[in-house]
Amino acid sequence: MPGHVTVYEVGPRDGLQNEAASLSTPDKLALVRALADAGLRRIEATSFVSPRWIPQLADADPIVSALPRAEGVTYVVLVPNAKGLERLVEALRRAGDTRPEVAAAVFMSASESHNRKNLNRTVAESLRELEDLVPAARARGLRVRGYVSTVFGCPYEGAVEPERAAAVAERLLSFGCEQISLGDTIGVATPAGTRRVLERLLRVVPPDQLALHMHDTRGTALANVLAGLELGIATFDASIGGLGGCPYAPGASGNLATEDLVYMLHGMGYETGVDFAKLIAAGALAQRLVGRRLPGKTLQAELARTEA
Amino acid sequence: MPGHVTVYEVGPRDGLQNEAASLSTPDKLALVRALADAGLRRIEATSFVSPRWIPQLADADPIVSALPRAEGVTYVVLVPNAKGLERLVEALRRAGDTRPEVAAAVFMSASESHNRKNLNRTVAESLRELEDLVPAARARGLRVRGYVSTVFGCPYEGAVEPERAAAVAERLLSFGCEQISLGDTIGVATPAGTRRVLERLLRVVPPDQLALHMHDTRGTALANVLAGLELGIATFDASIGGLGGCPYAPGASGNLATEDLVYMLHGMGYETGVDFAKLIAAGALAQRLVGRRLPGKTLQAELARTEA
Repeated sequence: MPGHVTVYEVGPRDGLQNEAASLSTPDKLALVRALADAGLRRIEATSFVSPRWIPQLADADPIVSALPRAEGVTYVVLVPNAKGLERLVEALRRAGDTRPEVAAAVFMSASESHNRKNLNRTVAESLRELEDLVPAARARGLRVRGYVSTVFGCPYEGAVEPERAAAVAERLLSFGCEQISLGDTIGVATPAGTRRVLERLLRVVPPDQLALHMHDTRGTALANVLAGLELGIATFDASIGGLGGCPYAPGASGNLATEDLVYMLHGMGYETGVDFAKLIAAGALAQRLVGRRLPGKTLQAELARTEA
Repeated sequence: MPGHVTVYEVGPRDGLQNEAASLSTPDKLALVRALADAGLRRIEATSFVSPRWIPQLADADPIVSALPRAEGVTYVVLVPNAKGLERLVEALRRAGDTRPEVAAAVFMSASESHNRKNLNRTVAESLRELEDLVPAARARGLRVRGYVSTVFGCPYEGAVEPERAAAVAERLLSFGCEQISLGDTIGVATPAGTRRVLERLLRVVPPDQLALHMHDTRGTALANVLAGLELGIATFDASIGGLGGCPYAPGASGNLATEDLVYMLHGMGYETGVDFAKLIAAGALAQRLVGRRLPGKTLQAELARTEA
């Protein structure tokens, strides 16, 4: 029985951080506005990861202070550590009365090697850090989402046992995360692997506390979403136009395109609150701003159809 | 319970007929050879549709006469009418003792408008013609596949009732077709629509007499394949590298890429007989021959990974 599905938009953060082009702050805010206007209610806006690592998102402070307040919209901001949390809190303080609804997101990997290479910590060290960080964010009045990367495969280790993601996810929930997003960081999952991971996690976590963050690197993202829907998952991450490539295979595709996800969900009778025509307009804007043909297939099909 | 799935390769016919570049006959034969070498056992090689309509396949006669005999491989050739059948039979006669295993394919649409625009006939007129053509091909010792286009949507009429595809499919089977390939000509299907059509058809047709020919125009092809697998379908059409765009939205994607399909099937434990590394090599060859970056995602991911 189709019901409501939350389309969780990651383009302004996960998409732009993997694009070669850095957008200006006003252009980023214009994109965020277009996404909110299209009816998206969860928009990941930026990240307080050090600009040394992600120069594309160096303007996180002015972005957060200027996020447009919109009815029902929660913006999410990536927070790597206590310092990032303080920057977020300070930016929100500056926004003052016009402060929009903002949540925090924390992140780590299911696989040891990826966590070390990406965060320079063991999995155990990351868990210890987040055990303090998540409650600290909640004490500031912020809801917290937890990202677990390399759930379905690791660029260094290959296959990853579902047990690993389950162990990390359970800990993050126990720290106070309200939802765990399971990431197919290198886009290797198939519906069989998706089911295996979800069946393990659903033994201990209710489906509304899980989200799927599938990459379309091998074209399987929507098939994996379908496997997730069939197991009761109702939140899926996606990036406008498919913004953001695969960092482990430059030139290959990365994030699932929001338009492809919404097209499939609406075609199956799911309700998302998204206005499809406005979403295509937001995708066209994203493509104009980054100045390259974006990989989203529905976006290209709709643009070709309307230009024909 | 995963078992065997037949990956039905349409690149040399359906792919190349929608590419701007015309390949030379030796290049086409090299591609066909690479596909057979990769373990594909059903390869649609060319078409006897008039070169006035499809100049890219004007060399159907020399192609058929030179098809490389390969253990277990059946080539399929599109035959639009009695004249096309005579050309096929004559080309096979010229091949003589080296004649490979060849089958014929006939085609028409589920929707009236598409059949008229594409074939200049009503659906009823096409059925009358195929009622003679299919038995004539069988009388020449050829097995016959039937294509039904616009099953999931028509570029002129929009939605198409499953009843329409069912009516056409049942007639084609009664004429002697051994399998019906259900085509999502404009790439609009979602898993819900795929199920609706299949559930209607499976009331009267066993699953091994059905194939799905999904287009990836909106990124949903593999999700639709998954819906088909769940209903017992075990033959899926795909095109090497995603060769061939969408004729109704120039610039948009068309055929499902064979590498994406095989990647997902193998990841789910299905057996296809395809050697994945050789399939990627065939995709790289296809890309070199047509001289443009092909849309197949797994192909691009594998090429980026191995070049990195």
